[in-house]
Amino acid sequence: MASGETRAYRRIDLDQAEALRLLGSVSLGRIVFTRQALPAVRPVNHVLDNGDIVILTHEGTALAAHAQQSDGTGVVVAYEADAIDPDTHLGWSVVVTGYAHIVSDPLVLTRVLGLLRPWAPVEGRDQAVRIHPELVTGVLLTEAGGTTRLTD
Amino acid sequence: MASGETRAYRRIDLDQAEALRLLGSVSLGRIVFTRQALPAVRPVNHVLDNGDIVILTHEGTALAAHAQQSDGTGVVVAYEADAIDPDTHLGWSVVVTGYAHIVSDPLVLTRVLGLLRPWAPVEGRDQAVRIHPELVTGVLLTEAGGTTRLTD
Repeated sequence: MASGETRAYRRIDLDQAEALRLLGSVSLGRIVFTRQALPAVRPVNHVLDNGDIVILTHEGTALAAHAQQSDGTGVVVAYEADAIDPDTHLGWSVVVTGYAHIVSDPLVLTRVLGLLRPWAPVEGRDQAVRIHPELVTGVLLTEAGGTTRLTD
Repeated sequence: MASGETRAYRRIDLDQAEALRLLGSVSLGRIVFTRQALPAVRPVNHVLDNGDIVILTHEGTALAAHAQQSDGTGVVVAYEADAIDPDTHLGWSVVVTGYAHIVSDPLVLTRVLGLLRPWAPVEGRDQAVRIHPELVTGVLLTEAGGTTRLTD
């Protein structure tokens, strides 16, 4: 597309079920949290487990430390995944906001680590963190008037 | 790769120049900021302009509102871009942290809007936001022992 050309472009909000379905169709996303009062973000892989998002992170990182609040409430994080074409910039993006907790149950840990293993081998410093979705938003980026097939 | 198989996997830190070069080689990233005391993230496109990252966002969004601090200091945001293979999960990720400011100079605005136009047509509600990198981190995700070609 020429630089001066305008594109008929549309954003369509997705409902929660469709947004989570799309998020579950990919394995990579970005965890967003607060670190020393500054916004922080890093790419991780994820699985959906009983409606929650489970990711692996390094023990001792800011996120893991924050998620181990003494009162058990966890900390609020955001999680984003998308599939956006680098050329057309059409696709979708989903953002989940919710409390993060370290996964400590050995049985649950074994199950989710098995699911997450294909990316990063489990090391002693890796911990699983569970994010329970409180707020789910998703947007479909499409051309106005056109039909767009969701990738999954 | 079978589920039980482990992968020799390595993270290599990138220096600032290489990290910014990679970020500039793609046009899509995720802006990370704080909204009503909660972490927020959304995908946007970007250009590099004199070493700063410039993105488009909607006027009146939390980010734009925050970036218009009365004392002119801006707000601290993070910006993440990556190119990670969805199958092998190898690639790179770059995170920039810095102050965000609304671009108000008409000449600068015209220039950066021209660069950003190919994705989203300029609407009245779009504003350009400039992020001056204070902290740049990047990681190369590669197989141990192997050579990895950076995509650009």
